[in-house]
Amino acid sequence: MDQRPIGIFDSGLGGLTCVKKVMELLPGEDIIYFGDTGRVPYGTRSAETVMKYVRQNIRFLKTFDIKYIIIACGTASSAALPLIQEEWDIPIAGVLEPTCRAAAKATRNGKVGVLGTQGTIRSGKYEEKLMKLNPQLQVTSRACPMFVPLVENGYLESEATNLIAREYLLPLKEQGVDTLILGCTHYPLLKPMISKIMGEGVTLIDAGAETAFHAKEYLKEQGLLNGQLQGRVQYYVSDGVEGFTSLAGMFLEKEIQGSVNDVAIENY
Amino acid sequence: MDQRPIGIFDSGLGGLTCVKKVMELLPGEDIIYFGDTGRVPYGTRSAETVMKYVRQNIRFLKTFDIKYIIIACGTASSAALPLIQEEWDIPIAGVLEPTCRAAAKATRNGKVGVLGTQGTIRSGKYEEKLMKLNPQLQVTSRACPMFVPLVENGYLESEATNLIAREYLLPLKEQGVDTLILGCTHYPLLKPMISKIMGEGVTLIDAGAETAFHAKEYLKEQGLLNGQLQGRVQYYVSDGVEGFTSLAGMFLEKEIQGSVNDVAIENY
Repeated sequence: MDQRPIGIFDSGLGGLTCVKKVMELLPGEDIIYFGDTGRVPYGTRSAETVMKYVRQNIRFLKTFDIKYIIIACGTASSAALPLIQEEWDIPIAGVLEPTCRAAAKATRNGKVGVLGTQGTIRSGKYEEKLMKLNPQLQVTSRACPMFVPLVENGYLESEATNLIAREYLLPLKEQGVDTLILGCTHYPLLKPMISKIMGEGVTLIDAGAETAFHAKEYLKEQGLLNGQLQGRVQYYVSDGVEGFTSLAGMFLEKEIQGSVNDVAIENY
Repeated sequence: MDQRPIGIFDSGLGGLTCVKKVMELLPGEDIIYFGDTGRVPYGTRSAETVMKYVRQNIRFLKTFDIKYIIIACGTASSAALPLIQEEWDIPIAGVLEPTCRAAAKATRNGKVGVLGTQGTIRSGKYEEKLMKLNPQLQVTSRACPMFVPLVENGYLESEATNLIAREYLLPLKEQGVDTLILGCTHYPLLKPMISKIMGEGVTLIDAGAETAFHAKEYLKEQGLLNGQLQGRVQYYVSDGVEGFTSLAGMFLEKEIQGSVNDVAIENY
């Protein structure tokens, strides 16, 4: 038993799809969430810049006596892992490993697609990890830079999103991928549309959800679960408390509960 | 005569539409351009955060012995002016004033539309300035949060952009505006599409271009023009030199000339 909270961070709102899953799977856990809304998006920044941000975010989360950190951001996981895990004396999980394991397990024809931000796809980390798990896999990657702004502006089912999504996805469909990694925690909000374009028989792997499954297993194995009935979540953002609060519900699929506070992240 | 350079800054790439016009109108001027690509977009950030960024950007530009600063960003102009002009011992121009003057002069039926980022529209600064110039004007404003990501990803003529642009613009068209302010320096790249949707007879006011006209007038009046035949431009960005260099041509409508360098803007 370990009553310390879990720390989860993302470049902004996307990581809330992971928070949602953690709350479902581990309702007794206290969570400190940090959304770096003052420096979002990470997907178009250089790897060095993202690395600097990741270190500051971890230093901030460490000010709460946390037991486990989830980097609920495809771009930050790609830029910072595994290097960052060696730097800190606390278990740190990214979305990369659990997601790739789930995809390698799910595929039947060995053709796996990866969607992510420009930074994530440029890093080649998903591809590298998948090939390590199974060198027979045929991996096709695609950067989808419009998905984050479309999601953050609520264009979840519009025709404009459909047109852009078709442009991104049809080449992957033609490749015959049967498993598709949604390698950015914003993308699960587009699941219905992506699923419709890709067609039945294509398994979508949700980075945030897989990482939450992985967290549950790890904490259980290590005897680190919190025994309480109902945990609570505290949210911190680096800019725009109001904007975050009003959009959070779309990602959590219910109204946000718990405090939302500002933090000057550049001081960490 | 004054051979010191002009300083121009923007949240990222958009300000290059202003640089382009300054190069056309004032070919003899040396220009130091700063694009805050490490902290773009400004349009969704709080006014306090944008104000902090503006002060750092000006401190950086002041390290070059400059004679004049242009804030080539609708969001930053709205958040920082006129307060920021009182803080510094150098003439600082934003896009707000020249753009509103041009619009107030151009309208025949007194109905003026304003397009901008969320931050710009929320500030109400364009509306305020227009009403001060002519209290009879009827002003309709509209935030267009998808325009910056669409432009930065090259969706200038796609059907997806057309659908989103129609959603933003048709209410303004129904209002009968005959003059439309493009209150963000990214938007001129969508001019052909906006013009087609609004129809003939609607005058589009380009914030970057109007600000360049204003700069020329001011420098001439004050005797601050540079007498040389051909000036040169130096570009600085806070992240992603490569990405900036590859996209700059789209905004400048010609290949970028002059050096592009990194700057750690948070140290200013």
